[in-house]
Amino acid sequence: MNVIYMDNNATTKVAPEVLEAMLPYFSEYYGNPSSMPSFGGDVAAKIREARENVATLIGAAPDEIVFTSCGTESDSTAIRAAIESYPDKRHIVTTRVEHPAIKNLYENLSKNGYQVTFVPVDNHGHLDLDYLYQNLSDDTAIVSVMWANNETGVIFPIEEISQEIKSRDIVFHTDAVQAIGKIPIDVNNTGVDMLSLSGHKFHAPKGIGALYIRKGTKFAPFMVGGHQEKGRRGGTENTAAIIGLGKAAKLAEKHLDENGYERIKGLRDKLENNLLENVQNTIVNGERDSRLPNTTSIAFEYVEGEAILLMMNEHGICASSGSACTSGSLEPSHVLRAMGVPFTAAHGSIRFSLSRYNTEEEVHFIVEKLPPIIENLRALSPFWKKAMGT
Amino acid sequence: MNVIYMDNNATTKVAPEVLEAMLPYFSEYYGNPSSMPSFGGDVAAKIREARENVATLIGAAPDEIVFTSCGTESDSTAIRAAIESYPDKRHIVTTRVEHPAIKNLYENLSKNGYQVTFVPVDNHGHLDLDYLYQNLSDDTAIVSVMWANNETGVIFPIEEISQEIKSRDIVFHTDAVQAIGKIPIDVNNTGVDMLSLSGHKFHAPKGIGALYIRKGTKFAPFMVGGHQEKGRRGGTENTAAIIGLGKAAKLAEKHLDENGYERIKGLRDKLENNLLENVQNTIVNGERDSRLPNTTSIAFEYVEGEAILLMMNEHGICASSGSACTSGSLEPSHVLRAMGVPFTAAHGSIRFSLSRYNTEEEVHFIVEKLPPIIENLRALSPFWKKAMGT
Repeated sequence: MNVIYMDNNATTKVAPEVLEAMLPYFSEYYGNPSSMPSFGGDVAAKIREARENVATLIGAAPDEIVFTSCGTESDSTAIRAAIESYPDKRHIVTTRVEHPAIKNLYENLSKNGYQVTFVPVDNHGHLDLDYLYQNLSDDTAIVSVMWANNETGVIFPIEEISQEIKSRDIVFHTDAVQAIGKIPIDVNNTGVDMLSLSGHKFHAPKGIGALYIRKGTKFAPFMVGGHQEKGRRGGTENTAAIIGLGKAAKLAEKHLDENGYERIKGLRDKLENNLLENVQNTIVNGERDSRLPNTTSIAFEYVEGEAILLMMNEHGICASSGSACTSGSLEPSHVLRAMGVPFTAAHGSIRFSLSRYNTEEEVHFIVEKLPPIIENLRALSPFWKKAMGT
Repeated sequence: MNVIYMDNNATTKVAPEVLEAMLPYFSEYYGNPSSMPSFGGDVAAKIREARENVATLIGAAPDEIVFTSCGTESDSTAIRAAIESYPDKRHIVTTRVEHPAIKNLYENLSKNGYQVTFVPVDNHGHLDLDYLYQNLSDDTAIVSVMWANNETGVIFPIEEISQEIKSRDIVFHTDAVQAIGKIPIDVNNTGVDMLSLSGHKFHAPKGIGALYIRKGTKFAPFMVGGHQEKGRRGGTENTAAIIGLGKAAKLAEKHLDENGYERIKGLRDKLENNLLENVQNTIVNGERDSRLPNTTSIAFEYVEGEAILLMMNEHGICASSGSACTSGSLEPSHVLRAMGVPFTAAHGSIRFSLSRYNTEEEVHFIVEKLPPIIENLRALSPFWKKAMGT
């Protein structure tokens, strides 16, 4: 059975060009890039090139890029660096709709003596900027706001927020894991001090990420060890994955330059509009305009998201309900709850997240298969019957 | 030019079987293992199998294994977990010859209010056990002692130390990164609470490691994020690398069962004895008996190690001077300094570290090429001339 993969905000396929670029560095050029001889030295040059590619994708200088093992590590590194650099400050700020990498870290810190402000969102997923600004103080060490939401795709006004923050002595970090490669990002247009990205969200392998650290930003390493990454991240360089990340960054840049996301946005819109038209009691979660071009979170009221996934899976369709990182629990997603999406809609929400590998045919297939699935599930749902008064 | 690679304590070639096991998980079965559908579910089963393989290699239960991104992360996780679990204790213990992943972390902690004891070694590289035991107190949170030294290969009496520590409420951690796969290790024979290992030291790829956490050991996550690894390590699972680690563990176990290290030890001894016989003023650094079978650190007095490496490199021979992780600096190795190796010997020390891919022919080649290199370099060395009174 063919797999129709529309769960790219969870993880992506490694691009064939990326895998090809990585392959020689496992069993052939496997030397330690920190070793002196040329056997290792060639690898060091390839790592430099990868660093340049990643930097270019976001308008940074190569020295401002530190490779990490994943987005979670990038986030932890940023937050821990800020609080270690400002040991007297005990207040930290983030939003109610962050990825668990930030959310759980902030909750952890709140148990360890930090005062944490979680900025709310409205039912479109828009951040309450007044609330954010009013809560900043001289005691604030760091503000961390995601660039785009992983579940709804809603984009936050990072440039605007950074202008407000940059006059103060506060570190501004953004988790841009979902935005990278999907929309153009240039750190020069913002006052962002640190930015997290993760390879496996844009066709590099799992197990590699990066942190942008603006020149001049106070920093302390999270992963303390050897002198790698100029003392900013210990641990032997993950050569093949770094080279893969560099290649993926290059491909992402090319794709953005060629407006490749217009096509993806077209497919997403076709999928979304068609489902809204053909399935009653269906709602798009969050703002539809300022949104990642590949993402739609659709609530099919009065059905269980997990049941929809199972039925779609029988047709080879992969999507997700809530964020993959919190699945395994049956709690409704914290993002949808923060937006005030009603229980009956949050539970039936499905996220489709597309990539450049998706096709028009796949959209047609889903649009054909999904409406009867919803109809069948609703026929079994006591909530649906009650809501319809039948 | 053929490369003769004898720098396996720095990093190893990914075994072809390991790469083959990994390959399908980049671009084919790339689903997020934490996602529900079977597209991700198959991957979850493979990760379970890998966890079992790693556990079996060290006599642990699968639940006691947490995957990390590298040895450095495993070490940081262990140390941070211990100090977070015993917040009232302010004393931590390690040795003077640890890898930078431990050494630099302990130095960092000593600047942040922790009292740190660095246990010395004698000139054979033996740990001063009396000093270690005398320095333990009710205030001690953790003792971290490496299983085997990366530079000399000297093995520490982990089982004996753990017996002494286990009656006290102190976490005992060992960095076994260099020992894993080279000597049999069974955590059941020790009181070790936590053990670090790193894939790329035994023919798995870079970017993957694991931490053994004995059941019942107090723990707090270092990488806070999603629910992965049962909440013990956030971040999307590095599927391909985890599967690679599992395969490498299986291969290492087979190799140990078949006494494969007897052959490697034979090659190492031949190399070492031959160089000792044919090059004057040559010394093996550290104990020769209780030592990893693949490692020899040889001091060629009155020459520069970096110069030896460069000359060997012209013949395609890769080894290292000091630890790869600290190269790039011209400081003599902290391990050799801690052992009291004289400056003139420490500076001329070369570490050869073999693997199962090395051959008798390679040893013959080195034994033929290296003595004239040393002779030529000494002819240029003012230190040598002075020492020889010429």
